[in-house]
Amino acid sequence: MGPEIWSRIEELAAITAEPGKVTRLFLTPEQKRATEVVRAWMTQAGMAARVDALGNLIGRYEGNRPGLPALVVGSHLDTVRDAGKYDGILGVVTAIACVEQLDRESIRLPFAIEVAGFSDEEGTRFGSTLLGSRAFAGTLEPSQLESRDAKGITVADALRQFGLDPAAIQTAARNPRDILAYVELHIEQGPVLERLGLPVGCVTSINGATRFKTEVAGKAGHAGTVPMAGRQDALAAAAECILLVESRCGGEEALVGTVGMIEALPGAVNVISGEVRFSLDIRAPEDAQRRRAVDDVTREFERIAQRRGVSIQVAKSHEAGAAPCSPWIMAQIDRAIQAEGIAPCHLASGAGHDGMAVAAITDIGMIFVRCAGGVSHSPAEAISVDDVETGARVLLSFIKNFQPERAV
Amino acid sequence: MGPEIWSRIEELAAITAEPGKVTRLFLTPEQKRATEVVRAWMTQAGMAARVDALGNLIGRYEGNRPGLPALVVGSHLDTVRDAGKYDGILGVVTAIACVEQLDRESIRLPFAIEVAGFSDEEGTRFGSTLLGSRAFAGTLEPSQLESRDAKGITVADALRQFGLDPAAIQTAARNPRDILAYVELHIEQGPVLERLGLPVGCVTSINGATRFKTEVAGKAGHAGTVPMAGRQDALAAAAECILLVESRCGGEEALVGTVGMIEALPGAVNVISGEVRFSLDIRAPEDAQRRRAVDDVTREFERIAQRRGVSIQVAKSHEAGAAPCSPWIMAQIDRAIQAEGIAPCHLASGAGHDGMAVAAITDIGMIFVRCAGGVSHSPAEAISVDDVETGARVLLSFIKNFQPERAV
Repeated sequence: MGPEIWSRIEELAAITAEPGKVTRLFLTPEQKRATEVVRAWMTQAGMAARVDALGNLIGRYEGNRPGLPALVVGSHLDTVRDAGKYDGILGVVTAIACVEQLDRESIRLPFAIEVAGFSDEEGTRFGSTLLGSRAFAGTLEPSQLESRDAKGITVADALRQFGLDPAAIQTAARNPRDILAYVELHIEQGPVLERLGLPVGCVTSINGATRFKTEVAGKAGHAGTVPMAGRQDALAAAAECILLVESRCGGEEALVGTVGMIEALPGAVNVISGEVRFSLDIRAPEDAQRRRAVDDVTREFERIAQRRGVSIQVAKSHEAGAAPCSPWIMAQIDRAIQAEGIAPCHLASGAGHDGMAVAAITDIGMIFVRCAGGVSHSPAEAISVDDVETGARVLLSFIKNFQPERAV
Repeated sequence: MGPEIWSRIEELAAITAEPGKVTRLFLTPEQKRATEVVRAWMTQAGMAARVDALGNLIGRYEGNRPGLPALVVGSHLDTVRDAGKYDGILGVVTAIACVEQLDRESIRLPFAIEVAGFSDEEGTRFGSTLLGSRAFAGTLEPSQLESRDAKGITVADALRQFGLDPAAIQTAARNPRDILAYVELHIEQGPVLERLGLPVGCVTSINGATRFKTEVAGKAGHAGTVPMAGRQDALAAAAECILLVESRCGGEEALVGTVGMIEALPGAVNVISGEVRFSLDIRAPEDAQRRRAVDDVTREFERIAQRRGVSIQVAKSHEAGAAPCSPWIMAQIDRAIQAEGIAPCHLASGAGHDGMAVAAITDIGMIFVRCAGGVSHSPAEAISVDDVETGARVLLSFIKNFQPERAV
């Protein structure tokens, strides 16, 4: 299956808003073209395909009788700007290839299979992630349709321009009784499998994340005339905060903390910074672990502020709880990996995924495929065709042997 | 003298390119208007005033016979953008007030007095400081006339537009035999006198400065998926550098080190920084002290880079040696301060001044006047009218009692 998946990924990568780059945002003409191309592949694989009220593409392969509850497999079709080719796409195209293989072998299982190509996982256009899978799970807030893109267009307007009806979003919501589980294959986006020398691994949890906007207010001054002893240098205070985040989060397995954005004002070579703004992103596979880290870091920020005579304001800008994968699904993923002669390995997902939203209505599982150098959200994102093949074989084996937790 | 100096400073502050702000850049119509206003005050104070080839305004008050060598007192007439009212201006207006007082008392001294209103100290327009006082000292490089402002206009073009001849710049250069000393009164721009509770102080040296552009190259990565242990976070490395600068420079009297600009790339909340650029400014009253600090800091940056698996490139962008004030002038400034019943105090100047250039042809001294909160290069720059009066009395006492080092 590897070479065909590979060539389809290349075909999708060419559908982009920016020639030479892969940029395919939610509810754009590029997404429409990609949706049509993927829909044709679904049909060719023996599925009935439809686009739901949020633009999610859903293909359905019936089980051994029509109308059975479904195992949902898939990922997302949207990308960040100047993206890699595999993030999201790999999972959708691999799922279609698996169904095509079943169809080729005329296999009908005691459950239906649905392949989901979610329309908005990245959140690049409207700044709010998982709109597609939230609509699928029935957890999309109507207020989210009022989010605006950089041009001031709302999600509702964009849905209309795409040919959809924003008043119909509830029709995208699925009944939990119709779904047995959600399983997603995705490029790892991190270096763990590569370091372990393994092509695939089983995800234990999609990490929860807390993000903050932090503002340090010190006192600007002339870099030459204010003695070191009396300074209230906002950038030096921020530097201490950054190293604190690094040491606190570096001290625990699976916990990560990152300061990725920083701005110092007034921002001149010869002026002590009076104000610094920086972002903070803390993630962990377990909510309690993340909350402990957040508490420790923010408490220590306060100590730094007091010691330096500056103020540090911390405002939460985002919080998402961890989405643990279900042990019964993980056990079946492990067996599918072992069936390919590969040592099973468990790892957490540091990035967010559609499963976080779908977990509201069903149990979830994820299969990660090895990523070159851990590079993600970049045109340098890379994967090997052998690993694509291995990932597809594991997913196919998982599907063929899937045992629902409850009787169908 | 205080109230008159105060009202003249207010009058000059109204001559600006930006209504409501004080912005008077080199060779602009605003500078021309200011020059004419100040020239009239010089004439009124009994001086012969002229504008030299670089736009410096020079007033001359003859001594007890014509053509005697001169004690030069003054400062600069240009400002930064959205400047305070006192930086530079205070020294020129106070010097004129002192000469006016001598003239009122019909005092002629055994030396001439020249009041210099230098045309470009800040360097705001062309990015290169001290053009006026360098021309006065004969150290202006002809190549500096080719510097361009933001609109692409060269210094030479701007001189022509101002009505001056760029081919004549050598005529601005003064013969060292004609000058006995250069003494400048200036707002401190720092908090030292305020902390000491003193209205004026005697400057020991204009600090030398070394500036660097620093680039940290690490490895960008997903904030959620790259474990802490394997990161090459350029911003965390930069944070360590910033704290190192703070601790190294904080450990020695009179040494200062500042990181005032920072940029982290790609600069996203959920991406580990792959590249960070920051500025570094190190100053000290003695060159050897500054060089030791620069050596220590850059060597330690290299250790940080090696330990963290990043690279740190340091490129010098500016270097100016310290300009020490002459002990024989400092002694006379101290006496003038004591004569006003004030405890003499010595402090270094962290900011650059015209004296750095004039030191090429004569000995220099500086009198600092207390500054509110150390605020400089800001509309919030402030000074009290009492301190203006005290500064003027000290400068007048210094002038009246001035003893040249060599026979006139």
